[in-house]
Order: sequence, then structure tokens, then C-alpha cells
Amino acid sequence: MRVPGVLPRPYGARSPFEKQTRLGGAGPGAPHGWGNNAPNNFNSLTPLQDLHGIVTPSALHFERHHNGVPAIDPARHRLLVHGLVDRPMIFTLDDLERVPAVSRLSFIECSGNSWDCWRDEAGDFTIQEMHGLTSTSEWTGVRLSTLLETVGVQRGASWMLAEGSDAAGLDRSVPLTNEVLDEALICYGQNGEALRPEQGYPLRLLLPGFEGNINVKWLRRLKLGTAPFMTRWETAKYTDLLPDGKAYQFSLVMEAKSVITYPSGHQQIHPGFHEIRGLAWSGRGRVTKAEVSVDGGRTWQLARLQEPVMPRCHTRFRLPWKWNGQEVILQSRCTDETGYVQPTRQDLVKVRGTNSTYHYNAIQSWRVERDGRVRNIYA
Amino acid sequence: MRVPGVLPRPYGARSPFEKQTRLGGAGPGAPHGWGNNAPNNFNSLTPLQDLHGIVTPSALHFERHHNGVPAIDPARHRLLVHGLVDRPMIFTLDDLERVPAVSRLSFIECSGNSWDCWRDEAGDFTIQEMHGLTSTSEWTGVRLSTLLETVGVQRGASWMLAEGSDAAGLDRSVPLTNEVLDEALICYGQNGEALRPEQGYPLRLLLPGFEGNINVKWLRRLKLGTAPFMTRWETAKYTDLLPDGKAYQFSLVMEAKSVITYPSGHQQIHPGFHEIRGLAWSGRGRVTKAEVSVDGGRTWQLARLQEPVMPRCHTRFRLPWKWNGQEVILQSRCTDETGYVQPTRQDLVKVRGTNSTYHYNAIQSWRVERDGRVRNIYA
Repeated sequence: MRVPGVLPRPYGARSPFEKQTRLGGAGPGAPHGWGNNAPNNFNSLTPLQDLHGIVTPSALHFERHHNGVPAIDPARHRLLVHGLVDRPMIFTLDDLERVPAVSRLSFIECSGNSWDCWRDEAGDFTIQEMHGLTSTSEWTGVRLSTLLETVGVQRGASWMLAEGSDAAGLDRSVPLTNEVLDEALICYGQNGEALRPEQGYPLRLLLPGFEGNINVKWLRRLKLGTAPFMTRWETAKYTDLLPDGKAYQFSLVMEAKSVITYPSGHQQIHPGFHEIRGLAWSGRGRVTKAEVSVDGGRTWQLARLQEPVMPRCHTRFRLPWKWNGQEVILQSRCTDETGYVQPTRQDLVKVRGTNSTYHYNAIQSWRVERDGRVRNIYA
Repeated sequence: MRVPGVLPRPYGARSPFEKQTRLGGAGPGAPHGWGNNAPNNFNSLTPLQDLHGIVTPSALHFERHHNGVPAIDPARHRLLVHGLVDRPMIFTLDDLERVPAVSRLSFIECSGNSWDCWRDEAGDFTIQEMHGLTSTSEWTGVRLSTLLETVGVQRGASWMLAEGSDAAGLDRSVPLTNEVLDEALICYGQNGEALRPEQGYPLRLLLPGFEGNINVKWLRRLKLGTAPFMTRWETAKYTDLLPDGKAYQFSLVMEAKSVITYPSGHQQIHPGFHEIRGLAWSGRGRVTKAEVSVDGGRTWQLARLQEPVMPRCHTRFRLPWKWNGQEVILQSRCTDETGYVQPTRQDLVKVRGTNSTYHYNAIQSWRVERDGRVRNIYA
């Protein structure tokens, strides 16, 4: 208090005492750590164990990109809408920002999130290493349906190609269901300001509840057609290989999932009072219930859901707990508004086998050992 | 698309094409611009005209401090709770983070926001210059009531001194009403990460709906007593001078207010379609209605409120509008859940006079001139 403090800054930064970072992930199939993957084929993971509430700071939003983050001048960026439409059109950012807009809080989760959990042996990972490919932001943009009314959709148009302008040219086929038309946005805003470069600056598709990669970033083209476009991203990648060698295609929805963020992997706790904290979410709508077990799934207690509880958005849950110093297994499971209950790992593997890389949403088990160390296990 | 993009960063930054900044304000009574005020007695203003949705990016959250932003090591920071309590206690950050927590989205508004509007002549200002001392974040922390249960409140304790550890030693008296006990938080989290230094790192008081300065930042001490402590901040400053020379003290609630953020001061628009966008908020609860007039207040249209609408939180409103190129006066007025309706400037001045610096919440009028330029006026 004896020295005057520093003056305001035009654009603020966090305290130098704060050190939380995204963790460079190497992508499915490679070991963790920066630089272990093919050049520019990268992801980074959100430190879920360090977050408060439900908003992920934009600087810590997870990333997944297949050939790096492009540097795009928004004044030169264009969005082409064509194919089975009455009036093919090219939109500038200024055009799109004048159109009626909506904002919504929504999670995005990479379909490859938690891929480590398909392994036969449980790795000694942190929650960030295992489950950090999901984040929540407030997104702002134009409804896809508004854009499609402007160009005029022709009869028979039931699929839409969305193409990014990154060096990977990532493109995906989007089914034009009523749900997609109700929910999809063409976004330019994230947490009050422009999209961050890693989340698609200056324009991305948002398909709330659908796997991350179909929320195409650096969006430059939408083409309407009568069938899926069968891009390499939906054939060579992003399918779910089943035990019999067949693969699910277009398994787009991220099903209900929850994880305890505290206590979680590699943390060290002491006997006494703790508030168990976690996040739950569902690609099908609202989370209606989060339950916590402190005995490896034999009994369950209802956790308190933090308001606001929004559809297709991270929901924070909390439960007071006293640890007596004995070994315990902590689990959470959530239920969504469709009645779907997050499965055990055993039940998930029974249906899906372990050939898949994607769409893992089973109950996470943390073992608290006698010395207070928390470890990832299968239970 | 022909060059690979950049790799992930541990802690992201916005695109170099984005230039929105906080504007250095000089504080009530001095001209606008950085450096016009007494050393370290500063504020900075949020660019409301550039924001999307309701979350303010932490880097653009307004600032107000009376002797600069202190540099605090969280490991050495302590919170003392004493006075009329059974067990005076000192808390570390670690102590507080273990206690059951809550998160909520809430606006904060400086009581001096919009002070320019008390002047007799309407200045040719932007919305940021006039109304930029308000922002919304998701705040996380411990309920004040949880902390007070821990220390044990003694009979007769009805006020609480909250003291910051900045070089100004800002301290305010907080009435321990049921509403305060229900709502007040001791916060360490903002938008998912630790508080930003300018918003009180590592600890602040949050009193949702109360004037900004009583949400004491860099909080180090809470003292319970039987009466207000009459600090210089609530005698020499932060009172509302009435026409007869008397002053309101402890006028803590920020009443319902709204502003059109687009189109707004200094913007230039063209004839044709526009979406009128704005923010509305009330220190007494939820905004229930936002109305827009495009004829200087003769007729009003109901604007659409963007979900989620949360109590004591910025609420985004939107209304489609076609400008025909004629001079028009745009206004917004909001109503909150208590039935309170935002007053006209005339009605506000009738009651309060123009001696005051604080708590201006009248309807904002923007005149769109024939050339499309938007100008602040009194109407």
C-alpha cells in the first residue's frame, strides 16, 4: 500500500503470478507434449482443473487444427454461399455484422476428447491431458437459417458443405435437419469480442452439441447439395470404428458427459472438508442431473447444479465432501433432458469396443490414494 | 491456404487485426483522455459499441482506481475478518478456494458512469466515453454469508467495513441487509480464471447491483460493527448532492438503465436495414422489458431480449429497423422486475437537479443526422 499502483492499460492482461496454460497435445495416437505430432497438425488442451464457473477464458480455449492457424485479414475475408440456392452470394464481414444476430453460451468438444480412455490400461493422466478438448464461450453471429433465407434454398437441398480457409482446407458435410436450422450460427463473436484466431477468426460455423471439427473454422464457403459430400475428413477421419470393422459415419452429436475437475488427476488432497467440483454437458440439450459417487459407483448423491443451466453448455456442479483419509473412488455421472444417462466405461466398451478414437463419454473414475494423491483409474 | 498456419500458444491472444481498446478516462470533472487526472487516480472505459453478447472480455473490463493497480502476490495475501465476530480469523487464498463456492454472471457499474450527462449541454461523445464504466463478467467466489457463519456474527452487527489493499486504501461501509447476505460474494474468479489485476486480484467483494466502488477490490479486511464507518469515500466522495445542498449518502443500488450500442455516438450509418442493438441492466433484479423509440420517445416498440436474462446482469436487446435517410432520434428505455421504468432525463433532473456526479440512469438519445452521423443529444 506504500507505493502507487500501475495505471490503466488499453487492453488488459492477467497477473504475472497466474501461470495456467493450455497444454500442447499431440493428437490422437501420439504421446502427450508439444511437438510430437506431424508439423502443424496440433491440438492444445484447456486446463479444466483450474477453471472457475462455466466460461472458459478465450486465451485458454482448446485448439484443434490440422495445418496451423491461418492469419486472415477480415477486410479481405469472404463467405461464398452457393450450390442448390436461388441466389448464390458472397458476403463480407460487414454484410454479416449488419444482419440480425444472436448470442448464446455453448460448449464445443472435440470428438477426439478423452481418446486416451479407449486404451486398455488407464494412463496416469491429469484431467487436462485426458479431457481438455472442451471449452465454453458466449458465441455471437447470424443464424444459418437467416443466411439461407437470404440466398433461397432450392428443393432437395438437404446437406451443406462447410469449408474452412486454413491450409488444411478442412471441410465437412452438415445435414440440414430442423435441429441444425434452429441451432446453427455463423459466428464472428466470442466472449464479447471477435473470435480468437485459434477459434476461427474472423468467421466460424457453430453447430451447438455437434463434434468440434464440424464447427468449421475460418469459414469461407457453404455449398448446398442433396447428399453428404464425403470429404476425406468424414471418411479417413472422424468415423467411429466398431468391433466388427464397420464404422459409424456422421456420428455428430456429443452425448452427455461429466468429469470431476476437483479433486482430479495428479492433485494432492488432505483429509478434511472439500467441495467436489465438476463440469457436465450434453450435445442434446440441458443437463438435468449430476450425481457424484464417493464409493466407486455403489451409491450416488445428487450434486448442486450452478445456475444458469443452459442447453448444450457446460454446467458446473458442486457437492460438499469430507475425506477421511481412506482410499476412495470418486465418480460423476450426468443425465440430460432426453433422459440419457452417462454410461460406465464397461457399458460403453460393450457397445463400441475399443477400436474407436472418438466420442468417448463414459464415467470418469478418480482414485484418491491414502497419501491423498489422485489417480485416473478404470472402475 | 498455401502456407501452413501458426502452432498453438499456451495462452492465446486476439488477432492483430483487432484494435478495440479501453479508453483512458480522466474521472468525473476532468476532460477525457489519458493523463488528464491526478497521478494514479484513473479510470478506463469499456468499448460498449464493439461488444457482442453480454460477456465483457476481461481485457476490456472497465477500471476505476484511486491510486493505481497494486501488484499483489496471492501467496502472501490475507483477508482479516474481525470486529463484532465470535472468532476473528485470517484467511489465505487457499483457505477461501476450499470453501463451497458459487459463480454468477453480474454487471458492475461505476456510480460515476454517464456523469457527463449531468452537464447542461449534451457533449458530442461516443457511448464508450459516456457510458463505458460498466461491464459484465462471470464471477466466482465464496458467499459472504458462508464466511460470516464461519467467524460467527455477534448481536447488533449490522454494518461491515470492507477495505482494499491498494495505495488508496479504499474502504466502504456495507449494510448487512438480508439482500446483501443473499447476494454478496468474496470473489477470486472472473470469466473462468483468476480476477484480473484491475478488477481486484487476487480478491474482491462483489455486491451485485451496488455501485462499483463498494465492490471493494484487492480486499484485505472485513470489520463488523453497529453503524456505518463514515470513511472519506462515503463523505467527501460517492454521495449524491441534491438541488437544496443536502446529499444522499449510501445510495448504493444502480437503478435500471439501458443504452443503444448500435447505432451510437460518432458512428456513421447508411439508409437501409439495421439491427438496433443495446444493453439493459438493473441493480434490483432482472430486466423484464426493453423498448426502443425511433421518433424521440413519441412511440415505443418492444425489443427482443437475448436469452439468458439474468438478475443484475447486462441483458442484450435487439430490434430490426429500416432507416429511410431522414433525421431521427433513437432512444431505449427498460423496465425491471420491480416495475421500475428508466426515467427521461427531464424527469431525473426534476428530482435530482444537476449538482450530482453519480447515479445517472436516464434515457439516452442518439440523433441520426441526414448524413448518417450519430450524435448524443438531450431530447
